Amino acid sequence: MKKVKVYVTLRESVLDPQGSAVKGSLHTMGYNEVADVRIGKYLELQIEPSERDVNTVVREMCEKLLTNTVIEDYRYEVEEAN
Amino acid sequence: MKKVKVYVTLRESVLDPQGSAVKGSLHTMGYNEVADVRIGKYLELQIEPSERDVNTVVREMCEKLLTNTVIEDYRYEVEEAN
Repeated sequence: MKKVKVYVTLRESVLDPQGSAVKGSLHTMGYNEVADVRIGKYLELQIEPSERDVNTVVREMCEKLLTNTVIEDYRYEVEEAN
Repeated sequence: MKKVKVYVTLRESVLDPQGSAVKGSLHTMGYNEVADVRIGKYLELQIEPSERDVNTVVREMCEKLLTNTVIEDYRYEVEEAN
């Protein structure tokens, strides 16, 4: 069994209204040192062994379902799970 | 300037309907090796130097606004940003 951590972030050039809203709230709360906030997704997948390569499977799933590659980037890490 | 990466995950005991839906979709698409999906948030904060300690500030922000500590856990990493 593998544990795969996927990090999905908005591309640099894409506006992040959710991040802007959070930054505004943090400033209102007095955290004026916060210069920028960007919000993305973090996914943890448990993947059972199969005849397919885990990297191929993860990349396919990211491109087909988990991310919108027009506006999002992703990276992932594969770990051995117990 | 520090770059802080915050990972917010649902606690183990909390159901994740969004993760279940994604798992169902992946199975429908033929990725039957996916045993579990959990979905969380990933935040990147840029924090300017201030008289306050960055760890204290990040922990406060997480507990007060960024996470719901009743149902979510968080961890974070502080990096030196350019």
